Amino acid sequence: MCDECGCQAGGASSEKKVIEINKSLLDANQRLGEKNRHHIEQMGAIAINMISSPGAGKTTLLEATAERLSRATRFGVIEGDIETQRDADRIRAKGIPAVQITTGGACHLDAALVHKGIHELEHLLGPDELDLVFIENVGNLVCPATFYLGEHKRMVMVSVPEGSDKPAKYPRAFIGSDLFIISKTDLLPYFDFSIEEACSEAKRLNPDIKILTLSATTGTGVDEWLEYLNKILLEK
Amino acid sequence: MCDECGCQAGGASSEKKVIEINKSLLDANQRLGEKNRHHIEQMGAIAINMISSPGAGKTTLLEATAERLSRATRFGVIEGDIETQRDADRIRAKGIPAVQITTGGACHLDAALVHKGIHELEHLLGPDELDLVFIENVGNLVCPATFYLGEHKRMVMVSVPEGSDKPAKYPRAFIGSDLFIISKTDLLPYFDFSIEEACSEAKRLNPDIKILTLSATTGTGVDEWLEYLNKILLEK
Repeated sequence: MCDECGCQAGGASSEKKVIEINKSLLDANQRLGEKNRHHIEQMGAIAINMISSPGAGKTTLLEATAERLSRATRFGVIEGDIETQRDADRIRAKGIPAVQITTGGACHLDAALVHKGIHELEHLLGPDELDLVFIENVGNLVCPATFYLGEHKRMVMVSVPEGSDKPAKYPRAFIGSDLFIISKTDLLPYFDFSIEEACSEAKRLNPDIKILTLSATTGTGVDEWLEYLNKILLEK
Repeated sequence: MCDECGCQAGGASSEKKVIEINKSLLDANQRLGEKNRHHIEQMGAIAINMISSPGAGKTTLLEATAERLSRATRFGVIEGDIETQRDADRIRAKGIPAVQITTGGACHLDAALVHKGIHELEHLLGPDELDLVFIENVGNLVCPATFYLGEHKRMVMVSVPEGSDKPAKYPRAFIGSDLFIISKTDLLPYFDFSIEEACSEAKRLNPDIKILTLSATTGTGVDEWLEYLNKILLEK
């Protein structure tokens, strides 16, 4: 819950207690995340945790993926939102199984919520029916970066309208990710967005991060995204 | 700290303790927020807390305000960011006094950080030198909505590229705000953004919320924003 974000207003003693308790909660989250990973692997699948600000285009990329990824790859989606079923409805409209997790105010998914989502997805499909699970996190470039959900790959997305200063301003999501997607590149002519700045800042924070640029609307760069998915599926 | 967002992974007992401690931290934040408000009023000013996702255009609107607001209105800016001094540098380049608060990982400003910012601004300007203080919160549409900073007005901004479903998906920021700004309206021809949907959802959540639509880049709607500022300054 956002209500439970610690802050310095309560004095050193309360603050220390909160830090201690939250450390144990984070440790518990990590352990449950590892269980989730094991569970997903037992289903024969791998999972990708998608992190971005609201409206960066995560759901639109999943819609394009539903249209263009080879039918041989079976995938499902766990949608995390504070409120509404809208994103899961958009995915289901493309014929892809999706479960919606509404966090009821919380600013990120955690491993316990995703655990529930995995069971719902399994119940929907039966075992051995999945190769790939996308976990679309709550739209927030900050807090989701702290919570391991059991994913095999973590991706962070920034859309062109948000500005190329975002890696420098929100470093943690980039430090912890395997893939950085710059989305809505069809809008580059209308914005003062420097691909070079965004990439060099992301690489400075995380030299191993892979970077893709794409527009899910026009389709530019989507082939490279599908290639990336096929590659990590082959490695599993 | 994001590390301190509570989650359900640690079991009911730890969770209850975190909720209790965080309730007391939030109460302390509220009290310190009220002190901030009193301090700002003693300086002869009022404050506006600006909340949005990263890249919605808060700093760009402040730049346009610096260019176009009557010189008779003296204003200063407290910039909240996780990292970097970039936003304060942009404001200072327009000749406006700005102090940068870097939260060092935290996903929102709190009253204690703003308290520090007010003192820095006062130190920079001397007393009785301000009519209006803008507090530009960390780019995050979720967590900042929970923390009162001492502001007289709270505004939430959503840019056209983010999509008109944002009020429904991130209700708390709209329930607690006085003003809702739809920004980057020059991009309406390129996006499937329904002004009607965004406004009706915001009004459903908060019937008293005032709504402005503008593009700080082209200047459309900026006059109405300046009128709004003049009106709240007259009421103070």
